[in-house]
Amino acid sequence: MADTGALPLVILSEQFAKLPGIGMKTAQRLAYAVMSMSDEDARKFSDAILSVKKDVGYCKVCCNLTENDICPICDDLNRDKSLICVVESPKDVSAFERTNEYKGTYHVLHGLISPINGIGPDDIRIKELLSRVDGNTSEIIMATNPTVEGEATAMYTAKLLKPLGVRVTRLAFGIPVGGHLEFADEVTLFKALENRNDM
Amino acid sequence: MADTGALPLVILSEQFAKLPGIGMKTAQRLAYAVMSMSDEDARKFSDAILSVKKDVGYCKVCCNLTENDICPICDDLNRDKSLICVVESPKDVSAFERTNEYKGTYHVLHGLISPINGIGPDDIRIKELLSRVDGNTSEIIMATNPTVEGEATAMYTAKLLKPLGVRVTRLAFGIPVGGHLEFADEVTLFKALENRNDM
Repeated sequence: MADTGALPLVILSEQFAKLPGIGMKTAQRLAYAVMSMSDEDARKFSDAILSVKKDVGYCKVCCNLTENDICPICDDLNRDKSLICVVESPKDVSAFERTNEYKGTYHVLHGLISPINGIGPDDIRIKELLSRVDGNTSEIIMATNPTVEGEATAMYTAKLLKPLGVRVTRLAFGIPVGGHLEFADEVTLFKALENRNDM
Repeated sequence: MADTGALPLVILSEQFAKLPGIGMKTAQRLAYAVMSMSDEDARKFSDAILSVKKDVGYCKVCCNLTENDICPICDDLNRDKSLICVVESPKDVSAFERTNEYKGTYHVLHGLISPINGIGPDDIRIKELLSRVDGNTSEIIMATNPTVEGEATAMYTAKLLKPLGVRVTRLAFGIPVGGHLEFADEVTLFKALENRNDM
């Protein structure tokens, strides 16, 4: 970071650069953008940062992020509590909610089992999932990403869930809608072939 | 922005999305990154934002950003005060400082004349430049970008400066070092040809 003579700008740039995907050049650009904000906008921005740390916690049921004890989805009487969709992160919940189709609940693991990164089953919210499952639970959908860690976590969790007598399913993987066969990688194509449906 | 159930996260995402070049998806990702910062880091980030607004002002001599009355460059006895490099923004000062070659001072215009955007000569720091020029000033280097606005601003400012009896120069434009002729656009190539030097 070149010294522009204004230390606060250098400090703010360094703060921006700590965020994922923000390099030093972008960080500097963002710091200048903050500089040209109105005082009120800068205060709102600053307060918003403190607020996510202070006011946001975990839903006691599904471990999703919420500013209440129970998140609005778990609190919604219209949602099907017997259906639990298990995802890696709150972002995945947002993705499912955007479909406007899923009417069950979620369980957010906050990570995936990844021995190479030192993350074991006890480091993610699997215990909380097991303790949620009772006679009312009809199905658990494992909706982790189709990566090595995602698959391992889905397999491991399914193994723990099955003895509880609950149906465990996995998201379908195949050709994305609007995608082209010629651009699909071989694994995706194999999955699509393997999981073909009768017409 | 999909509702994840946590309003503070949505608010913070919206704040990030106001920054230039940050779309809604990136903003959401950054908000989650803040969420997983330590409390101390989040406070530092929040404070850094307030600090650039509160502590950073304009140098009384060169209009660069600084937290003092006079910026470290104008305050440096080793810098050649008779030489003034006129740039559009503080970022350009950083760029010149990175060369470690330029030992004169700067003048930051904070914008370029751009009638189409309603920015006239009085909206940028040209007056401040004119009032700086005195018998001790030997040369003023116009170092605005080679864009329509940059050229217009350089021409306009030079016209005001010349009657003051000061030498006004313009940065050289040509093939960038390490660049390839075949990839140079025609205007750059023409400039390089026009400004060729004896070997």
